[in-house]
Amino acid sequence: MLALGIDPGTAICGYGIVESDGSNLTAIDYGAITSPAKSRQEDRLVKIFDSVDALIKKYRPEILGVEKLFFYNNVSTAIPVGQARGVTLLAAAKNQLEILELSPPEVKQSVTGYGKASKDQIIFMVTKLLKLSEPPSPDDTADALAVAIGTLYLANSFAWRNR
Amino acid sequence: MLALGIDPGTAICGYGIVESDGSNLTAIDYGAITSPAKSRQEDRLVKIFDSVDALIKKYRPEILGVEKLFFYNNVSTAIPVGQARGVTLLAAAKNQLEILELSPPEVKQSVTGYGKASKDQIIFMVTKLLKLSEPPSPDDTADALAVAIGTLYLANSFAWRNR
Repeated sequence: MLALGIDPGTAICGYGIVESDGSNLTAIDYGAITSPAKSRQEDRLVKIFDSVDALIKKYRPEILGVEKLFFYNNVSTAIPVGQARGVTLLAAAKNQLEILELSPPEVKQSVTGYGKASKDQIIFMVTKLLKLSEPPSPDDTADALAVAIGTLYLANSFAWRNR
Repeated sequence: MLALGIDPGTAICGYGIVESDGSNLTAIDYGAITSPAKSRQEDRLVKIFDSVDALIKKYRPEILGVEKLFFYNNVSTAIPVGQARGVTLLAAAKNQLEILELSPPEVKQSVTGYGKASKDQIIFMVTKLLKLSEPPSPDDTADALAVAIGTLYLANSFAWRNR
Protein backbone atom coordinates (compact mmCIF):
# COMPACT_ATOMS: atom_id res chain seq x y z
CA MET A 1 0.00 0.00 0.00
CA LEU A 2 1.19 3.48 -0.92
CA ALA A 3 0.34 6.48 1.26
CA LEU A 4 0.92 10.20 0.76
CA GLY A 5 1.42 12.16 3.96
CA ILE A 6 1.14 15.93 3.89
CA ASP A 7 2.09 18.47 6.54
CA PRO A 8 0.21 21.51 5.25
CA GLY A 9 1.64 24.98 5.60
CA THR A 10 1.56 28.05 3.42
CA ALA A 11 5.28 28.82 3.28
CA ILE A 12 6.48 25.21 3.59
CA CYS A 13 4.31 22.19 2.89
CA GLY A 14 6.00 18.87 3.67
CA TYR A 15 5.19 15.71 1.71
CA GLY A 16 6.19 12.08 2.04
CA ILE A 17 5.23 9.05 -0.02
CA VAL A 18 5.75 5.77 1.78
CA GLU A 19 5.11 2.20 0.67
CA SER A 20 4.33 -0.71 2.97
CA ASP A 21 4.51 -4.36 1.94
CA GLY A 22 3.02 -5.39 5.27
CA SER A 23 6.27 -5.50 7.21
CA ASN A 24 8.74 -3.15 5.57
CA LEU A 25 8.41 0.56 4.93
CA THR A 26 10.06 2.32 1.99
CA ALA A 27 10.26 6.05 1.36
CA ILE A 28 9.42 6.52 -2.31
CA ASP A 29 9.72 10.30 -2.40
CA TYR A 30 9.73 13.14 0.10
CA GLY A 31 10.47 16.83 0.32
CA ALA A 32 8.88 20.21 0.78
CA ILE A 33 6.74 22.38 -1.46
CA THR A 34 7.92 25.94 -0.96
CA SER A 35 7.14 29.33 -2.44
CA PRO A 36 9.42 32.35 -2.67
CA ALA A 37 9.22 34.71 0.31
CA LYS A 38 6.62 37.45 -0.21
CA SER A 39 4.63 35.28 -2.64
CA ARG A 40 0.95 36.16 -2.73
CA GLN A 41 -1.14 33.67 -0.76
CA GLU A 42 -3.16 32.69 -3.84
CA ASP A 43 0.06 31.87 -5.73
CA ARG A 44 1.20 29.72 -2.83
CA LEU A 45 -2.12 27.88 -2.85
CA VAL A 46 -1.90 27.26 -6.60
CA LYS A 47 1.64 25.91 -6.12
CA ILE A 48 0.53 23.57 -3.33
CA PHE A 49 -2.53 22.32 -5.23
CA ASP A 50 -0.58 21.76 -8.46
CA SER A 51 2.31 20.04 -6.64
CA VAL A 52 0.09 17.68 -4.63
CA ASP A 53 -1.93 16.94 -7.76
CA ALA A 54 1.29 16.15 -9.68
CA LEU A 55 2.61 13.89 -6.86
CA ILE A 56 -0.67 11.95 -6.85
CA LYS A 57 -0.70 11.56 -10.62
CA LYS A 58 2.98 10.48 -10.63
CA TYR A 59 2.92 7.91 -7.82
CA ARG A 60 -0.77 6.96 -7.61
CA PRO A 61 -1.00 6.55 -3.81
CA GLU A 62 -4.24 5.00 -2.56
CA ILE A 63 -4.63 7.19 0.48
CA LEU A 64 -3.82 10.67 1.72
CA GLY A 65 -3.00 11.20 5.39
CA VAL A 66 -3.20 14.58 7.16
CA GLU A 67 -3.20 15.53 10.79
CA LYS A 68 -6.42 16.63 12.46
CA LEU A 69 -6.11 20.18 13.69
CA PHE A 70 -8.67 20.61 16.44
CA PHE A 71 -6.67 22.77 18.76
CA TYR A 72 -4.39 24.99 16.81
CA ASN A 73 -2.14 27.07 19.00
CA ASN A 74 -2.56 30.31 17.11
CA VAL A 75 -5.66 31.62 15.38
CA SER A 76 -3.81 33.96 13.03
CA THR A 77 -1.83 31.02 11.61
CA ALA A 78 -4.85 28.68 11.69
CA ILE A 79 -6.41 30.42 8.67
CA PRO A 80 -3.34 30.07 6.36
CA VAL A 81 -2.81 26.48 7.52
CA GLY A 82 -6.50 25.78 6.92
CA GLN A 83 -6.17 27.26 3.42
CA ALA A 84 -3.19 25.03 2.57
CA ARG A 85 -5.00 22.04 4.09
CA GLY A 86 -8.11 22.85 2.03
CA VAL A 87 -6.36 22.81 -1.35
CA THR A 88 -4.52 19.60 -0.31
CA LEU A 89 -7.81 17.85 0.49
CA LEU A 90 -9.25 19.19 -2.76
CA ALA A 91 -6.37 17.71 -4.78
CA ALA A 92 -6.87 14.35 -3.04
CA ALA A 93 -10.66 14.34 -3.53
CA LYS A 94 -10.36 15.37 -7.20
CA ASN A 95 -8.11 12.33 -7.68
CA GLN A 96 -10.45 9.96 -5.78
CA LEU A 97 -7.98 9.26 -2.96
CA GLU A 98 -9.18 7.99 0.38
CA ILE A 99 -8.45 10.54 3.11
CA LEU A 100 -7.41 9.58 6.60
CA GLU A 101 -7.20 12.17 9.35
CA LEU A 102 -4.92 11.34 12.25
CA SER A 103 -4.60 13.06 15.57
CA PRO A 104 -1.05 14.10 16.55
CA PRO A 105 -0.95 11.41 19.29
CA GLU A 106 -1.99 8.78 16.72
CA VAL A 107 0.93 9.80 14.50
CA LYS A 108 3.37 9.75 17.42
CA GLN A 109 2.06 6.41 18.68
CA SER A 110 2.35 4.77 15.23
CA VAL A 111 5.88 5.99 14.61
CA THR A 112 7.48 5.76 18.05
CA GLY A 113 5.10 3.60 20.10
CA TYR A 114 4.58 6.54 22.43
CA GLY A 115 1.74 9.07 21.97
CA LYS A 116 3.63 11.91 23.60
CA ALA A 117 6.93 11.50 21.76
CA SER A 118 9.10 14.57 21.18
CA LYS A 119 9.89 15.97 17.75
CA ASP A 120 13.44 14.59 18.00
CA GLN A 121 12.16 11.11 18.82
CA ILE A 122 9.85 11.23 15.79
CA ILE A 123 12.65 12.34 13.46
CA PHE A 124 14.90 9.61 14.86
CA MET A 125 12.30 6.88 14.31
CA VAL A 126 11.27 8.13 10.85
CA THR A 127 14.94 8.01 9.79
CA LYS A 128 15.34 4.53 11.27
CA LEU A 129 12.09 2.98 10.00
CA LEU A 130 12.68 4.25 6.46
CA LYS A 131 16.43 3.45 6.59
CA LEU A 132 17.31 6.97 5.45
CA SER A 133 20.97 7.92 5.26
CA GLU A 134 20.25 11.14 7.15
CA PRO A 135 17.33 12.75 9.00
CA PRO A 136 14.83 14.31 6.59
CA SER A 137 14.92 18.08 6.52
CA PRO A 138 13.13 20.46 7.00
CA ASP A 139 11.02 19.26 9.94
CA ASP A 140 7.91 19.61 7.77
CA THR A 141 9.25 16.79 5.57
CA ALA A 142 9.91 14.55 8.58
CA ASP A 143 6.41 15.34 9.86
CA ALA A 144 4.88 14.44 6.50
CA LEU A 145 6.77 11.11 6.45
CA ALA A 146 5.59 10.43 10.02
CA VAL A 147 2.01 11.10 8.91
CA ALA A 148 2.44 8.74 5.95
CA ILE A 149 3.75 6.00 8.27
CA GLY A 150 0.86 6.58 10.69
CA THR A 151 -1.57 6.48 7.79
CA LEU A 152 -0.27 3.08 6.62
CA TYR A 153 -0.46 1.81 10.19
CA LEU A 154 -4.03 2.99 10.83
CA ALA A 155 -5.29 2.09 7.36
CA ASN A 156 -4.39 -1.51 8.13
CA SER A 157 -6.35 -1.51 11.38
CA PHE A 158 -9.59 -3.44 11.58
CA ALA A 159 -11.42 -0.28 12.67
CA TRP A 160 -10.53 1.53 9.45
CA ARG A 161 -11.15 -1.42 7.15
CA ASN A 162 -14.56 -2.04 8.71
CA ARG A 163 -15.77 1.55 8.77
CA MET B 1 -16.93 46.53 -13.16
CA LEU B 2 -18.13 43.13 -11.97
CA ALA B 3 -17.11 41.77 -8.56
CA LEU B 4 -17.66 38.39 -6.93
CA GLY B 5 -17.94 38.49 -3.15
CA ILE B 6 -17.59 35.28 -1.19
CA ASP B 7 -18.33 34.60 2.47
CA PRO B 8 -16.48 31.30 2.92
CA GLY B 9 -17.82 28.60 5.17
CA THR B 10 -17.82 24.83 5.00
CA ALA B 11 -21.54 24.19 5.54
CA ILE B 12 -22.77 27.42 3.91
CA CYS B 13 -20.70 29.54 1.55
CA GLY B 14 -22.40 32.77 0.51
CA TYR B 15 -21.77 34.37 -2.89
CA GLY B 16 -22.81 37.61 -4.52
CA ILE B 17 -22.03 39.02 -7.94
CA VAL B 18 -22.49 42.76 -8.19
CA GLU B 19 -21.97 45.15 -11.07
CA SER B 20 -21.10 48.81 -10.77
CA ASP B 21 -21.40 51.33 -13.60
CA GLY B 22 -19.72 53.96 -11.45
CA SER B 23 -22.84 55.18 -9.70
CA ASN B 24 -25.38 52.36 -9.66
CA LEU B 25 -25.03 48.89 -8.21
CA THR B 26 -26.85 45.85 -9.61
CA ALA B 27 -27.00 42.37 -8.11
CA ILE B 28 -26.38 39.97 -11.00
CA ASP B 29 -26.62 36.76 -8.99
CA TYR B 30 -26.44 35.73 -5.35
CA GLY B 31 -27.10 32.77 -3.14
CA ALA B 32 -25.43 30.14 -1.02
CA ILE B 33 -23.38 27.07 -1.84
CA THR B 34 -24.47 24.36 0.57
CA SER B 35 -23.70 20.69 1.12
CA PRO B 36 -25.96 18.06 2.70
CA ALA B 37 -25.52 17.70 6.46
CA LYS B 38 -22.91 15.09 7.37
CA SER B 39 -21.10 15.53 4.04
CA ARG B 40 -17.42 14.69 4.20
CA GLN B 41 -15.27 17.82 4.38
CA GLU B 42 -13.46 16.94 1.14
CA ASP B 43 -16.80 16.64 -0.69
CA ARG B 44 -17.80 20.06 0.66
CA LEU B 45 -14.52 21.53 -0.57
CA VAL B 46 -14.98 20.02 -4.04
CA LYS B 47 -18.51 21.47 -4.14
CA ILE B 48 -17.27 24.94 -3.13
CA PHE B 49 -14.35 24.90 -5.59
CA ASP B 50 -16.52 23.67 -8.49
CA SER B 51 -19.32 26.14 -7.70
CA VAL B 52 -17.01 29.18 -7.44
CA ASP B 53 -15.21 28.06 -10.59
CA ALA B 54 -18.56 27.75 -12.43
CA LEU B 55 -19.72 31.20 -11.21
CA ILE B 56 -16.49 32.78 -12.45
CA LYS B 57 -16.70 31.05 -15.83
CA LYS B 58 -20.39 32.02 -16.21
CA TYR B 59 -20.20 35.71 -15.25
CA ARG B 60 -16.51 36.54 -15.79
CA PRO B 61 -16.08 38.95 -12.84
CA GLU B 62 -12.78 40.87 -12.83
CA ILE B 63 -12.20 40.67 -9.13
CA LEU B 64 -12.86 38.43 -6.14
CA GLY B 65 -13.43 39.98 -2.72
CA VAL B 66 -13.08 38.09 0.57
CA GLU B 67 -12.84 39.27 4.14
CA LYS B 68 -9.53 39.20 5.93
CA LEU B 69 -9.70 36.88 8.91
CA PHE B 70 -6.97 37.94 11.29
CA PHE B 71 -8.81 37.44 14.52
CA TYR B 72 -11.15 34.55 14.22
CA ASN B 73 -13.22 34.02 17.33
CA ASN B 74 -12.86 30.27 17.47
CA VAL B 75 -9.83 28.19 16.55
CA SER B 76 -11.77 24.96 15.95
CA THR B 77 -13.89 26.70 13.29
CA ALA B 78 -10.91 28.67 11.90
CA ILE B 79 -9.50 25.55 10.20
CA PRO B 80 -12.71 24.65 8.27
CA VAL B 81 -13.24 28.30 7.33
CA GLY B 82 -9.60 28.50 6.21
CA GLN B 83 -10.10 25.38 4.11
CA ALA B 84 -13.18 26.85 2.38
CA ARG B 85 -11.34 30.14 1.91
CA GLY B 86 -8.34 28.28 0.44
CA VAL B 87 -10.31 26.54 -2.31
CA THR B 88 -12.12 29.81 -3.06
CA LEU B 89 -8.82 31.67 -3.54
CA LEU B 90 -7.56 28.75 -5.63
CA ALA B 91 -10.59 28.96 -7.95
CA ALA B 92 -10.04 32.71 -8.33
CA ALA B 93 -6.29 32.39 -8.98
CA LYS B 94 -6.80 29.54 -11.48
CA ASN B 95 -9.12 31.88 -13.40
CA GLN B 96 -6.71 34.85 -13.22
CA LEU B 97 -9.02 37.00 -11.09
CA GLU B 98 -7.65 39.85 -9.05
CA ILE B 99 -8.16 39.21 -5.34
CA LEU B 100 -8.99 41.92 -2.85
CA GLU B 101 -9.01 41.23 0.87
CA LEU B 102 -11.13 43.54 2.98
CA SER B 103 -11.21 43.91 6.72
CA PRO B 104 -14.67 43.61 8.31
CA PRO B 105 -14.64 47.37 9.17
CA GLU B 106 -13.82 48.18 5.53
CA VAL B 107 -16.84 46.15 4.39
CA LYS B 108 -19.11 47.83 6.96
CA GLN B 109 -17.78 51.30 6.13
CA SER B 110 -18.29 50.80 2.36
CA VAL B 111 -21.84 49.51 2.72
CA THR B 112 -23.24 51.60 5.57
CA GLY B 113 -20.78 54.48 5.97
CA TYR B 114 -20.06 53.24 9.49
CA GLY B 115 -17.23 50.81 10.31
CA LYS B 116 -18.96 49.37 13.33
CA ALA B 117 -22.37 48.78 11.76
CA SER B 118 -24.52 45.91 13.06
CA LYS B 119 -25.49 42.90 10.98
CA ASP B 120 -29.05 44.26 10.67
CA GLN B 121 -27.75 47.60 9.39
CA ILE B 122 -25.63 45.81 6.78
CA ILE B 123 -28.54 43.68 5.58
CA PHE B 124 -30.76 46.78 5.42
CA MET B 125 -28.23 48.72 3.32
CA VAL B 126 -27.40 45.77 1.03
CA THR B 127 -31.13 45.38 0.31
CA LYS B 128 -31.50 49.12 -0.32
CA LEU B 129 -28.36 49.67 -2.42
CA LEU B 130 -29.14 46.70 -4.66
CA LYS B 131 -32.89 47.50 -4.77
CA LEU B 132 -33.78 43.96 -3.76
CA SER B 133 -37.44 43.12 -3.18
CA GLU B 134 -36.55 41.43 0.11
CA PRO B 135 -33.49 41.02 2.35
CA PRO B 136 -31.10 38.35 1.04
CA SER B 137 -31.13 35.14 3.01
CA PRO B 138 -29.31 33.36 4.60
CA ASP B 139 -27.04 35.93 6.29
CA ASP B 140 -24.06 34.41 4.47
CA THR B 141 -25.56 35.61 1.18
CA ALA B 142 -26.09 39.13 2.54
CA ASP B 143 -22.49 39.09 3.83
CA ALA B 144 -21.18 38.01 0.42
CA LEU B 145 -23.13 40.81 -1.30
CA ALA B 146 -21.75 43.30 1.24
CA VAL B 147 -18.22 42.06 0.47
CA ALA B 148 -18.87 42.45 -3.28
CA ILE B 149 -20.09 46.04 -2.73
CA GLY B 150 -17.06 46.81 -0.56
CA THR B 151 -14.80 45.29 -3.20
CA LEU B 152 -16.22 47.52 -5.94
CA TYR B 153 -15.84 50.52 -3.63
CA LEU B 154 -12.22 49.81 -2.68
CA ALA B 155 -11.18 48.66 -6.15
CA ASN B 156 -12.08 52.12 -7.40
CA SER B 157 -9.90 53.83 -4.81
CA PHE B 158 -6.69 55.48 -5.89
CA ALA B 159 -4.73 53.42 -3.38
CA TRP B 160 -5.80 50.17 -5.03
CA ARG B 161 -5.36 51.39 -8.60
CA ASN B 162 -1.86 52.66 -7.82
CA ARG B 163 -0.61 49.63 -5.90
